[in-house]
Amino acid sequence: MNTVKSKTPTLTDVKKAYNRIRPYIRNTPVHTSGTLNKDLKAEVFFKCENFQKTGSFKIRGACNVIYSLSDEDAAKGVCTHSSGNHAQALAFAALSRKINAIIVMPENASSVKINAVAGYGGDIRFCEPTQEAREAVCSEIQQETGAVFVPPFNDNRIIAGQGTASLELLSDYPELDMILTPVGGGGLLGGTAIAAKGINPKAKVIGTEPEMANDAYLSFKEGMIIPVDNPATIADGLKTSLGELTFAAISDHVFDIVTVSEKSIIDAMRYVWERMKIIIEPSSAVPVAALMSGSMDIRNKRIGIIISGGNVSLDQLPWDKQ
Amino acid sequence: MNTVKSKTPTLTDVKKAYNRIRPYIRNTPVHTSGTLNKDLKAEVFFKCENFQKTGSFKIRGACNVIYSLSDEDAAKGVCTHSSGNHAQALAFAALSRKINAIIVMPENASSVKINAVAGYGGDIRFCEPTQEAREAVCSEIQQETGAVFVPPFNDNRIIAGQGTASLELLSDYPELDMILTPVGGGGLLGGTAIAAKGINPKAKVIGTEPEMANDAYLSFKEGMIIPVDNPATIADGLKTSLGELTFAAISDHVFDIVTVSEKSIIDAMRYVWERMKIIIEPSSAVPVAALMSGSMDIRNKRIGIIISGGNVSLDQLPWDKQ
Repeated sequence: MNTVKSKTPTLTDVKKAYNRIRPYIRNTPVHTSGTLNKDLKAEVFFKCENFQKTGSFKIRGACNVIYSLSDEDAAKGVCTHSSGNHAQALAFAALSRKINAIIVMPENASSVKINAVAGYGGDIRFCEPTQEAREAVCSEIQQETGAVFVPPFNDNRIIAGQGTASLELLSDYPELDMILTPVGGGGLLGGTAIAAKGINPKAKVIGTEPEMANDAYLSFKEGMIIPVDNPATIADGLKTSLGELTFAAISDHVFDIVTVSEKSIIDAMRYVWERMKIIIEPSSAVPVAALMSGSMDIRNKRIGIIISGGNVSLDQLPWDKQ
Repeated sequence: MNTVKSKTPTLTDVKKAYNRIRPYIRNTPVHTSGTLNKDLKAEVFFKCENFQKTGSFKIRGACNVIYSLSDEDAAKGVCTHSSGNHAQALAFAALSRKINAIIVMPENASSVKINAVAGYGGDIRFCEPTQEAREAVCSEIQQETGAVFVPPFNDNRIIAGQGTASLELLSDYPELDMILTPVGGGGLLGGTAIAAKGINPKAKVIGTEPEMANDAYLSFKEGMIIPVDNPATIADGLKTSLGELTFAAISDHVFDIVTVSEKSIIDAMRYVWERMKIIIEPSSAVPVAALMSGSMDIRNKRIGIIISGGNVSLDQLPWDKQ
């Protein structure tokens, strides 16, 4: 892994990232719902990264890495292994700088995801669907080509890039009491917490996680990284465990982490589709589920949510199985 | 019917409607898609009335009627018959003025729609699911209560109200070459054409209609109203035929009407859900299908589309049947 051990990024790093990436990303809109606000007796602001280029916030971190590279490094191209939003994001970001991106994907990845990566010009290499195979193939490619490995979350450039979503949100709504994000590998939560702490320390940043993939919750409570293996959650973007760098950022700046049930995720996702007419992926429904659970003190609060993405297969919706 | 025969509304009427309704409606956002623009070699601007209050543009016309009423008339309440978006819109508009709305709905209306109307405080009366029964029950209620009948489209106040969506669109994007809308009863198409002709006569307004419910197409071509009975189209909002007043507005100001196949509607709807992450109802996919059909000369054009609404049952999506 090319990750560099260094201290947690700061608001300055997030601002630098923003200046670097803003020509290549979308300043996504903020949506609200009168019905939801009435139901929750709170004011909720949805930062809609589902409308971001490639359909998720991941483009922010990917662009920050791509546009941090020297011309010499960039000429060698980049590589990663991912079956999710990071794969599309890196392919798109590389395309925007006209450099090569090799994406190692498990051979059982869905055709929708494969097509999306191919559509952004990603050079796809298939591997067996195990973590070991993914890392091994990626490592071989690095050695052969000199391509720069771009990790999905455990990298300070990625963390700073993901924090730019909150930079935009707090620029529009500086007086938030809380900001909620989902937490998988922790890049989005870490970056959000860094940005919020720097801009408005009163805005409590809270991570939200499926009960079935509660590694960040456990790690946060215990003060040490406690990974979970292959968790079974509908929120497919949140199956990964924290890395050292994201854990450090989260430990330093996050107020709390809460968990939600699988059923509550599906219910919240459907609520948002039906009432707000926006397509969010299951991972993005996790913070909404946390608000709707009734377990948090949110009355009369102003709450931001980072809606992480909208990449979901329309052929199999979670409520079809219920 | 309380409709009044009078000359077609003008841009002034649309502007007056806008001043009347703007405190009660949402100035909806305009979305774009880089992928769609690339596919079509055009620039398309989606005026997102799916994000409008009650999930469709219908609130604009309903509010224009509600807030045109004298206090004396308003005190008697309003009534309509509808199983669609007009029912929700009128209930919501009446609630905002704190007056009573009696909504006659067919007894086989979907529970989603019944719940939505009830949720906005509508006083629902069920009737047999025939046009005759709906009109008869509504007429009885008018006689008993003195409630003011609010028609869904064939009314100049409704037409002027629906035109306000284009007023907003053209205020943000004055230089459009075309504006496309779906056409059912013709209130939206008529109002759009009046607004566009007044603001930017170069912007051609084009109605788009399912082949299976092509009454507006036939009427426009023949110069006389040619209704269709109970057409079988997935675009459930477009089954109604033109009325005299909407036909007059359309004849005067619309550039053309084009039709699209059922399959193309479903494909366009899915494309928008997948790529743009917004939920649009089948009726709103009709103008998108027209653009994607390849039969129109749209190269390098700037095109506005009124996305009419987002009210769709998530339990049965059209592509599930394919």
